Amino acid sequence: MDNFTFHNPVRLLFGKGQIAQISKEIPAGSRVLFAFGGGSIKTNGVYDQVVAALKQAGLIWREFSGIEPNPRYETLMRAVELARTEKLDFILAVGGGSVADGCKFVAAAIPFDGEPWDILAKRAKVRQAVPLGIVLTLPATGSEMNCFSVVSRAETGEKLSFGSPAVWPRFSVLDPESTYTLPSRQVGNGIVDAFVHVMEQYLTYPADAPLNDRLAEAVLATLAEIAPAAMANPPDYQARANLMWCAAMALNGLVGSGVPHDWATHYIGHELTAISGIDHARTLAAVWPGIMAVKFEAKKVKLAQYAERVWNIHDGSIDDKARAAIAKTRELFESVGVPTGLAAYDLPADIAEQVAARFIARNQAPLGEHGDIDAQMAKKVLAAA
Amino acid sequence: MDNFTFHNPVRLLFGKGQIAQISKEIPAGSRVLFAFGGGSIKTNGVYDQVVAALKQAGLIWREFSGIEPNPRYETLMRAVELARTEKLDFILAVGGGSVADGCKFVAAAIPFDGEPWDILAKRAKVRQAVPLGIVLTLPATGSEMNCFSVVSRAETGEKLSFGSPAVWPRFSVLDPESTYTLPSRQVGNGIVDAFVHVMEQYLTYPADAPLNDRLAEAVLATLAEIAPAAMANPPDYQARANLMWCAAMALNGLVGSGVPHDWATHYIGHELTAISGIDHARTLAAVWPGIMAVKFEAKKVKLAQYAERVWNIHDGSIDDKARAAIAKTRELFESVGVPTGLAAYDLPADIAEQVAARFIARNQAPLGEHGDIDAQMAKKVLAAA
Repeated sequence: MDNFTFHNPVRLLFGKGQIAQISKEIPAGSRVLFAFGGGSIKTNGVYDQVVAALKQAGLIWREFSGIEPNPRYETLMRAVELARTEKLDFILAVGGGSVADGCKFVAAAIPFDGEPWDILAKRAKVRQAVPLGIVLTLPATGSEMNCFSVVSRAETGEKLSFGSPAVWPRFSVLDPESTYTLPSRQVGNGIVDAFVHVMEQYLTYPADAPLNDRLAEAVLATLAEIAPAAMANPPDYQARANLMWCAAMALNGLVGSGVPHDWATHYIGHELTAISGIDHARTLAAVWPGIMAVKFEAKKVKLAQYAERVWNIHDGSIDDKARAAIAKTRELFESVGVPTGLAAYDLPADIAEQVAARFIARNQAPLGEHGDIDAQMAKKVLAAA
Repeated sequence: MDNFTFHNPVRLLFGKGQIAQISKEIPAGSRVLFAFGGGSIKTNGVYDQVVAALKQAGLIWREFSGIEPNPRYETLMRAVELARTEKLDFILAVGGGSVADGCKFVAAAIPFDGEPWDILAKRAKVRQAVPLGIVLTLPATGSEMNCFSVVSRAETGEKLSFGSPAVWPRFSVLDPESTYTLPSRQVGNGIVDAFVHVMEQYLTYPADAPLNDRLAEAVLATLAEIAPAAMANPPDYQARANLMWCAAMALNGLVGSGVPHDWATHYIGHELTAISGIDHARTLAAVWPGIMAVKFEAKKVKLAQYAERVWNIHDGSIDDKARAAIAKTRELFESVGVPTGLAAYDLPADIAEQVAARFIARNQAPLGEHGDIDAQMAKKVLAAA
């Protein structure tokens, strides 16, 4: 096990009816930026619950709607302007990972001295941020329980990330009932996103970390177990509750403490979204088989352990088990409506060259647990996927 | 799954050499109460590492030694007096769970307006506390990653607990190498203590919480796996590291979020320590078989799941598997030198009556996940144990 620092100060308020608690969680006297996405919260009751809680607390708020999937810098800067003009001093992000990520950027950008895009493009240090709380309506990205954010810029076609302790959510409300009206496409995407988050921190090589391995396997096995019920309509409370809890646990720093990480699937996937606008989770399902094919030898011991513990596959050689686990994973993703492999998606013929060119253009540090996935290797991954 | 709030702001600094980090973690200009136990830290190098870090940070400190196992109110009040006299404003607890628990009480008692014993005996509200950091040298209680504390009072023979968000450790340093000089009795106790902490939050009844179940099983299976190497001499870094990480995870709020809890073994065990001075972990091993015997019917479904997933026992009926899992657990405890069952300990013949009388005397609320373990049931538990 490697040395690590684990710190996660997010206050998680979990369960039905918990949105009402935000009246006690937002500091009294705050002027709130109530930010959300495309308006689905107005039809599923979440908007009304949030407004009731804000009124209950006697808070002043301004609404900002229209934060899109893969939130755009251009949109977010309008929220920054609103917050600056109206002197708003608390941000309440209501929605999925895109709203949460977007609001983290807004929180950091409001007091930022300089061009906020530098936070993403030049990794400019975030020294302070407006405090932020989240009401989550889409279990997937884990943004509700971490201090990371991914933002896209339409004019340049870039999709970049930043992280800072200044943007830890002060609280996150996870009410499984708020997911009931989600389209099944988004539920399936969420299952895949959470699953791949864990795999990025687990499917590497043995590292004397049996507890972390088992924590990762706990999240993976639970996701596999609840996936059918989580996809069902009418929705199943317990399945949605466990999906929400799994998605938060998948990327809150715990599973990945003290162990090697991969993340190549994510970084290559981000480029596919930037180039072709494919849903984030779908890019992961598109790219992952390519990583497994190209890095099979380096990962097969861990893949075989994953086969045994998550999929109950005990027969055959290490290679056999590893291949069977990859097949099971693809089956799981397909079963929740997310196609796997690159061919399933409508991408330009030269996608591999485009991704490699982007890696080179911005001097992308080599990815993967061995730090060997550079632009050339990314091309091989996409060819294999 | 039940509604829950999860919040754990402790900053965990994990790994070899991390004690040096306290120079950055303690606020500059602090006047530090450096509190420890019986002096073992002076022979194993931990004292020197702490002093070097305090000097490095240019901090002023006062030492307070002699915090005993099952820390006593009388001792701790002397630390409170020192801190008040010397206007100390940060507490650095260096040792095991007793030093950590004792220092949480000291932290709360220093600014307490009134008789600090009321914090324990009357559950007086703790509104503020002096900030506290921990350097852990004995993985066992989990105190390094929670806001709870257990304190004993010699003159009345009481052992009582309190918890408050005011006493969250600001940081905890977990360096596995600092455990190398522990007597094997304390390592064995630590394994049992961590194991029982998880069982108190897991061995109840099925509650639609598959992720929590698997997280609990992850800690239990890891403890069982590493126990032999953790007991070995010379010490094994990876085994000690995983033991330390397991003990912290066993009682940091995560495993028990949204699920029923038991804790009857602990509460009855505390009385055995108060009456006869038996090590905390040993009281758990003494009492636990009695709880399993008396509550077998209510717990057997979960015991059978535990048998399958932690002990790989798949044959026989639910009852068979449940009994086999109890036997395996006792074997594990015995294998690390901790006898199980009451008969293995030197206790007064009327121990059951004494415990029952104490429960009645202080109106102990009924214990267990069904809230049915009262004074009479505690007598039955002790008879069965």
